[in-house]
Amino acid sequence: MTFSITELIERKRDGDALSADEISWIISEYTADRLPDYQMSALLMAIMFVGLDAGELDAWADAMLYSGDVLDFSHVAAPKVDKHSTGGVGDKVSIPLAPMVTACGVAIPMMSGRGLGHTGGTLDKLETIPGFRTALDPPEFTRLLESTGLVLAGQSETLVPADRRIYLLRDSSGTVPSIPLISSSIMSKKLAEGLDGLVLDVKVGSGAFMKNLDDAKVLAETMVGIGTARGTSVTAVLTDMSQPLGRAVGNANEMVESIEVLHGGGPADLVEVTYRLGEEMLLMGGITDERAEARRRLEAVVSSGAAFEKLVEVVEAQGGDPAVLHDPSLFPTAANEHVVTAGAPGFVAAADALDIGVGALRLGAGREAKSDVIDPGVGITVEVNVGDEVSAGDALARIAWNDDAALAATLPLVERAFSITDGPVSAPPMILGEVP
Amino acid sequence: MTFSITELIERKRDGDALSADEISWIISEYTADRLPDYQMSALLMAIMFVGLDAGELDAWADAMLYSGDVLDFSHVAAPKVDKHSTGGVGDKVSIPLAPMVTACGVAIPMMSGRGLGHTGGTLDKLETIPGFRTALDPPEFTRLLESTGLVLAGQSETLVPADRRIYLLRDSSGTVPSIPLISSSIMSKKLAEGLDGLVLDVKVGSGAFMKNLDDAKVLAETMVGIGTARGTSVTAVLTDMSQPLGRAVGNANEMVESIEVLHGGGPADLVEVTYRLGEEMLLMGGITDERAEARRRLEAVVSSGAAFEKLVEVVEAQGGDPAVLHDPSLFPTAANEHVVTAGAPGFVAAADALDIGVGALRLGAGREAKSDVIDPGVGITVEVNVGDEVSAGDALARIAWNDDAALAATLPLVERAFSITDGPVSAPPMILGEVP
Repeated sequence: MTFSITELIERKRDGDALSADEISWIISEYTADRLPDYQMSALLMAIMFVGLDAGELDAWADAMLYSGDVLDFSHVAAPKVDKHSTGGVGDKVSIPLAPMVTACGVAIPMMSGRGLGHTGGTLDKLETIPGFRTALDPPEFTRLLESTGLVLAGQSETLVPADRRIYLLRDSSGTVPSIPLISSSIMSKKLAEGLDGLVLDVKVGSGAFMKNLDDAKVLAETMVGIGTARGTSVTAVLTDMSQPLGRAVGNANEMVESIEVLHGGGPADLVEVTYRLGEEMLLMGGITDERAEARRRLEAVVSSGAAFEKLVEVVEAQGGDPAVLHDPSLFPTAANEHVVTAGAPGFVAAADALDIGVGALRLGAGREAKSDVIDPGVGITVEVNVGDEVSAGDALARIAWNDDAALAATLPLVERAFSITDGPVSAPPMILGEVP
Repeated sequence: MTFSITELIERKRDGDALSADEISWIISEYTADRLPDYQMSALLMAIMFVGLDAGELDAWADAMLYSGDVLDFSHVAAPKVDKHSTGGVGDKVSIPLAPMVTACGVAIPMMSGRGLGHTGGTLDKLETIPGFRTALDPPEFTRLLESTGLVLAGQSETLVPADRRIYLLRDSSGTVPSIPLISSSIMSKKLAEGLDGLVLDVKVGSGAFMKNLDDAKVLAETMVGIGTARGTSVTAVLTDMSQPLGRAVGNANEMVESIEVLHGGGPADLVEVTYRLGEEMLLMGGITDERAEARRRLEAVVSSGAAFEKLVEVVEAQGGDPAVLHDPSLFPTAANEHVVTAGAPGFVAAADALDIGVGALRLGAGREAKSDVIDPGVGITVEVNVGDEVSAGDALARIAWNDDAALAATLPLVERAFSITDGPVSAPPMILGEVP
C-alpha cells in the first residue's frame, strides 16, 4: 500500500486521525530511507501541535516496535524486569539498582542511552570503568543475560531502528517534547527487550523533560497504557527532579556515589529512589508480593555484599577492570576544584537541577551534540539539598574542572542555581506519585 | 550574527515571537543552502499553527523581498501597476486584462507563475502560442517594458530567490495554507517588480486557497498591509471562486476565451471581473480618478481594437507567432469530446470549481508535480453557471480529451461537480468585497 506523504501531513495538520496502515507506512518508509527528512520533520511538528489519538498512538508504537527485532528471552527462567528513567540530573539510579535487583533473583536485560544535553546517560558513566564494553552483539547479550542475570549495554542496532532515525531528527527539529512521541520512543525500545515487566521512573521538575506533575502524569499514563496494551506489566513512579538526585553530577563521580549506595551508604534521596524502584521491580518480578519484604531483600543483598559482587561480576563479564570498583579513588578525577559558597546564612530554597545539569554539560561532563567527547573526570558535587540550613561561607557545590573556559561557562549557572532564604524551607518529597 | 536554528524552532513552536534579526538570519541562511530543509519545514509547520505577529510578518516579508534583486523602473514614465490573483479555476483574467490596461496608458511589468495542482497558471496558457518566450533576462524585460509597456514573463531567477526555495519546500511539506506565508510569498515577489501600485484578486470559494470570505479578508488585509507599509498602493478585490471563472478551463481554450473578451465578447462573469480589476488599475495608475471614466476607457480600447493589438504587439515582441491570435482555431485542440449532460430538469445549484479544477488537472491540463508536462489542447468547457435553468439532456460541460485513462479519472469529478435542484437558485455575486 502506498500513500501521498504530503496528503498525510496535511490531514494530520488539519486534525484528522491517520489510519494504522498510514502510520505503519510512514514509519517503515522513513526507516527505509524512502521518505525525506523534511517531510517527516513537518509531520512531527504537526504531531507536536495536534497530538496522536489513542488509535494513532497504538499504531505508532507498534510501527516503531516492529521496525526491527523484538527479543525473546522466554528461555531464561528468571523474571525479566527492566527499569527506565525519563532522564534527569545526577540520575545514576540504574547503576546501584540493577545489581541489587538481580542479586534478588530478577534478570535485567538493560539497554541504556548516552547523555545528551543536560541529562546524563548510564552508558557514559559505566564507560568510566577501564575496558568496560557496552556495545554487545545479540548472541553475547543473550549469553551474558543467561550467565549473570544482568546486562548493562547500549541499544542494539537491530532493535527499533525507526527510533534511532526519528529521534535524531526530532532532536534537531524542535520536535522532542511531545508526549505521544516520547512515550512511543521509550516504550518501543523497552518492549523490544522481551520483558515481563517494566518500572518507569518519570522525573518531574526543572531538570526533567516534564516540568510539572500534570504533564508527567499524562506521560506516565501514556507509557503504562502502551505497555499494558501489549501484555507487559508496567508501573511508573513519579519522582522529583527539581534538584539533582544525589550529590554527584558528572560521570566518574556518579560511579563513586553509586558504589557507596551498594555498600549501604550514599545520599538519602538517591537511596530512597533506588530502593523504591527496587521494590517495584521485585514485586513485578514476583520475587515477593509484599513491599516490606522486597525492601528487606534489597537491604540484605546490600549488607551481604551480594549486590556489589553482582556489579563486579557484570563489569568483568563485559570486559571491564573491576579494580576501580574496589578502589574508587582510581576513577578519573579533574585537576582542579572550585567551591561555590553561600554568601549569607539561611535556608536552601533552590538547587536548580536544570542550571546544574547545563553547568555540568558546559564543564565537559555531557554532550551538546552527539559527536562531542565527554571528559569523565569533571563534574559537580552538590553539597546541600533544598531545606538545608547553611552559614555564610558554607560550600554549596564543588566544581571539579580541567579547562578554564569551561569553568567560566559553568560557574554563573551553578551560582544562580542556588537560592538562600531567611525563613525555613521544607524539603520537597522525592516520590510524587505512582501510575497506575 | 548567528543563532541556533533548533532553539529558534523551539521558541516559535512555544509561541515566542522571533526578532527581525533572527528572521532575517533564517531566510538568508536557508536561501544560501546553509540550513537543512528538515529544520526549515519544521519551522514552517510551527508557523502554520502559531502564525506570525505583525513585527515578525514585517521582518519575514522584508527578508524575502531583499533576498534578491529589487527592480527599479523609475525611468519608465508611465505608472507601473500590476495585478495578481491568488489563483483559481478558469482564471485567465490577466490575459485580456493586461493588454486592455496597457492600451489605456499603464505599464505592466507582469511576472506570472505556472499552474500547480488544480489552479492554472498564466504562463502555461501563454505558452500555447507557438514561439512565445516567457523566460526573459532582466535587460530584455526592461527593454520590452520600455517599448511596449507590457511584459508577460515568468518570475526572474534573480528576484526573491528565497521564495522559490521556500515555496518548493512548502508545497511538499504541508505548509502552504498559512496566511502570513502566502502573503509574504506573493507580496515579496510583487514588490520586487518595482511597482507604483498593485491590484490583488483574492479568490474565495472551493476552487481557491481561501474557502470562505472571512479567511480571504484576512489574507487580503495582510497583503495590503505588507504593500502599504512599503509605500506601494495596494487594493484587493475579493471575487467568487465557488464555480470556474468563465467557461473554459484548460490552456489553449482559455486563450481562445481571452481573445473573445478582447473582441468585446466572452462570458459575463469573466468580463465583469476583468473590467472591475481594470478599473482599479486605471484608478491606481492615475489615468483617471473616476471609476465610470475608467470603465469607458477600457471599453474604448476594446471596441477600437487597441487592446487586442497590444496583445499582438506583446506576443510578437516576446517571439510568439500571432497567427493564433488572429485565427484562434489554430490553437491546439484535443482529439475527442465527451459531453456531461443534466439527468433531470431543474436549476444549477453548484458547478464546483475544485472538482472541475482537479478534473482538468487529471485530464492533463495541469501539473501534479512541477516536472509534469501539460497537454495544451485538453480542457473542460463549463456550459452552465449556478442559477441557470436546464432541461434533462442539456450539456453541463464538454470535456476535450486525448487519453482514455485521463478521461476516466476526470469524468466522475466533473459529474459530481454539478448539482441540479428543483427550485430556482440565485446566481452568486462575482464581487464579494474590497480591501481597503
